[in-house]
Amino acid sequence: MKLIARYYDLDAAEPLVLIHEDDAAAIGVKENDRVSISGPRSAVALVTCSDTLVERGVVMMPGPVMERCAVREGDEVEVIYSSKPDSVRSIRRKMDGEKLSREEIESIVNDILDNKLSKIEVSAWLTSLYINGMDIDEIADFTKSMAHTGDIIAFDRQPVFDFHSFGGVPGNKITPIVVSIVAAAGVMIPKTSSRAISSACGTSDFVETFCDVELDGPSLKRISEEVGGVFAWGGGMNIAPVDDIVIKIEHPLGINPRAQMLASIMSKKLAIGANYLLVDIPTGTGTKVPTIEDARVYARDMMDLGEKLGIHTECAITYADQPVGNAVGPNLEARECISILEGAKHPASVIEKACDCAGIILDMAGIPGGAAKAREILESGAAHRKFMEIVVAQGGSPELKSEDLKPGQFSEDIVASKSGYIHAIHNKDVVAIAKAAGAPNDKGAGLMIYKKKGQRVEAGDVLMTIYADNEAKLRRARETAIKYPPIDIEGMLIKRVSNMNVRK
Amino acid sequence: MKLIARYYDLDAAEPLVLIHEDDAAAIGVKENDRVSISGPRSAVALVTCSDTLVERGVVMMPGPVMERCAVREGDEVEVIYSSKPDSVRSIRRKMDGEKLSREEIESIVNDILDNKLSKIEVSAWLTSLYINGMDIDEIADFTKSMAHTGDIIAFDRQPVFDFHSFGGVPGNKITPIVVSIVAAAGVMIPKTSSRAISSACGTSDFVETFCDVELDGPSLKRISEEVGGVFAWGGGMNIAPVDDIVIKIEHPLGINPRAQMLASIMSKKLAIGANYLLVDIPTGTGTKVPTIEDARVYARDMMDLGEKLGIHTECAITYADQPVGNAVGPNLEARECISILEGAKHPASVIEKACDCAGIILDMAGIPGGAAKAREILESGAAHRKFMEIVVAQGGSPELKSEDLKPGQFSEDIVASKSGYIHAIHNKDVVAIAKAAGAPNDKGAGLMIYKKKGQRVEAGDVLMTIYADNEAKLRRARETAIKYPPIDIEGMLIKRVSNMNVRK
Repeated sequence: MKLIARYYDLDAAEPLVLIHEDDAAAIGVKENDRVSISGPRSAVALVTCSDTLVERGVVMMPGPVMERCAVREGDEVEVIYSSKPDSVRSIRRKMDGEKLSREEIESIVNDILDNKLSKIEVSAWLTSLYINGMDIDEIADFTKSMAHTGDIIAFDRQPVFDFHSFGGVPGNKITPIVVSIVAAAGVMIPKTSSRAISSACGTSDFVETFCDVELDGPSLKRISEEVGGVFAWGGGMNIAPVDDIVIKIEHPLGINPRAQMLASIMSKKLAIGANYLLVDIPTGTGTKVPTIEDARVYARDMMDLGEKLGIHTECAITYADQPVGNAVGPNLEARECISILEGAKHPASVIEKACDCAGIILDMAGIPGGAAKAREILESGAAHRKFMEIVVAQGGSPELKSEDLKPGQFSEDIVASKSGYIHAIHNKDVVAIAKAAGAPNDKGAGLMIYKKKGQRVEAGDVLMTIYADNEAKLRRARETAIKYPPIDIEGMLIKRVSNMNVRK
Repeated sequence: MKLIARYYDLDAAEPLVLIHEDDAAAIGVKENDRVSISGPRSAVALVTCSDTLVERGVVMMPGPVMERCAVREGDEVEVIYSSKPDSVRSIRRKMDGEKLSREEIESIVNDILDNKLSKIEVSAWLTSLYINGMDIDEIADFTKSMAHTGDIIAFDRQPVFDFHSFGGVPGNKITPIVVSIVAAAGVMIPKTSSRAISSACGTSDFVETFCDVELDGPSLKRISEEVGGVFAWGGGMNIAPVDDIVIKIEHPLGINPRAQMLASIMSKKLAIGANYLLVDIPTGTGTKVPTIEDARVYARDMMDLGEKLGIHTECAITYADQPVGNAVGPNLEARECISILEGAKHPASVIEKACDCAGIILDMAGIPGGAAKAREILESGAAHRKFMEIVVAQGGSPELKSEDLKPGQFSEDIVASKSGYIHAIHNKDVVAIAKAAGAPNDKGAGLMIYKKKGQRVEAGDVLMTIYADNEAKLRRARETAIKYPPIDIEGMLIKRVSNMNVRK
């Protein structure tokens, strides 16, 4: 059918064109079907129908679709039915619980990347993946397909070590410490990190407060080979880019299908040619991995997948029933992280976790001494010197000090309403408060937690301080803290059991 | 955050607003999250982000969202994060294979109807429903929730009989015949039908060639009570309207989850207060229900669900290995249907099926004689007189004759390439050809099939004629017929098995 092209200003993630319902019927398409639009060139687009927003005889096209067809406002185009991509059939097969071939998985991944699949189809894909899963062979194919959608970085210096944390625990600022220790020992670790997806502060969110994280592939390669490590933002490179599209659909559904999660992690390791990988699996109430049993399953998955992909993988199941260290939020975490590299002896939980993880990596690299060796490198100042080398290589100041990182100027203390022992610190509530305060976008926002589990507090003691860059967000954070109290205080006698069954 | 409202012309099924990525980060939302927008009034909308299509400080809003907020171009609005509706949590529970409560199902159905759920979320819902299903209690709650999204028609005349076909077989034009026979026997049957979803011609698509099918609720009630029956388009009334939204998401996925299908059928029966229902389940290769075993499962489901809902339900499993009758397409099916009411003795398959179905309904109504009685009513002319009463009540001509319905003026015969017996007629290919010819939108489009399964043909015999309203579509239909030959001819010896294993 011949229609007149008209421009409309629509966000272009989905190539959605708008045609009159009668024209759609004449072409033989319905809402969410595809049409092929031919001007000087051709493009496929998804159809939205209306009988009020568009006249008969017209096809409303967003700019990118007009460009692909090489047409301008008012040009005549030929619009015909276009069948679904074959990948839709493969998505159906996953709905039906079938095992997909490598070719099928590849075509789904490529069609997502090329915007050939609609949000409806990608959502059905992720939901099927969440419910029906994939076996380890499928996940290996999935990982390779995802890695091949982007750039592959080939290091001249070998071997390549990497470190990854499942995240999910607030305050987990160990990455720059681990990288600095490992690189100081002469082991190359080109570490890419993410920004917060649902958390209050991803590694890149706090590292960017003191140096540039948006490295391109060549810079990542050069700095890693010369200095031994980087703390880069993975999203700034073209590494497994299909992930960014998928996250936008996973996020509103609040799901992260196991196969997608494993493939997403490992595709990035594959893309940088990692030979050795340590995976940190924070385990505890209110994290992604609530129990040790869950953690063991993930660890087994990661190691099996690593084996299939030729990446020697080990896992560390780490304690995550409460935040790591005291600081949550970009500047606050950066300050705590750098102060440890500068020689601070606390918080012990951060130092211990960083040294344990770095020790395992040193061990994989054949350097004896494990966590003790890692701690020696940290305490000797060698890790701090390496850290500063990396910071400077990433455009940070050679004068950087932990005290340069300032908390937000608006703050409020949360005090204990009664005396007793800290019984629980709820990770999810801590995250919610820090986000309400403006983290990770407002760099000064977040909180300092002064009391951890098991500690004795007296009524009136300050438990934590909330920081924000403006007053409205501080108020919002306080309201969140009142609605979801992040810290439970109990007497030592948690529950008294008697014949009368009275709860103290 | 305060933003300036600007209009953009986007189809409004999803209330999608466009804001700059930096503003989204400052508000604390990501793509596909929700925001609440407050002007004089407030509305919730989904967020799309861009750093090129929109400036900082601006929110691009489609017309309906502007109206709901009572703002105009250039007004300042307050945009804040808005949490997901609770129904998203229930969708997650269905993903996890849980049984949903009546309240949860109700809130999902209502939120779909009110456009509170995004395409991504509705797709995840339907995919979960497809994979994890619902038990019969959930389906009953689902049915009631769907019925209550629309109008409920309360008939003063009782009892109310209804008839429903699963469809999926081309040429199934029996509905007006069944309704006319049943109504002629004094039994009230306010029949609503659909238009084609994936087929070449739904009942409403051919009935509208000779009378108006877009009745409102009061007209449906008045005509049914006065005349005894209608052939109305269900989509023209506000009956279980949530279905229309769901179909738009099911269609591109090519799925029709069992729970959704059953609830969709029964919600319409519930909305018109049906007391008795006959369900026709066409069964055969290339239909929705390929085998008798599948058909029995559906029949059991329908009867169980009917019992839960207080609708006495019976099922007819009918032969559907090939099209019903000879005609496929709006005018052609209307002509064949009316000619039978006028007294034609063929095609026998249409007459038999219509009389069998009408006979079961008469039986349920306590009128003895079954299919023979139905045939008597048809042959006596009483069914034709009732048919004409209904046609006239629905605005059709009192002079209506079958020969008034004309096939498209462009036609082409498909001839047998060899002699032999008709071995198979492929329903899906017949549908594809009729649709390529322009059905159901072009009323003259479709095909006449002259030879049915088991019949002997000689090379050169005309097997079918394709009709179209224009030459381009006729050409397209011919190409489809060449690509997907709809009729198989074989010698009587289908396969010769010998020691040499040679296929004849």
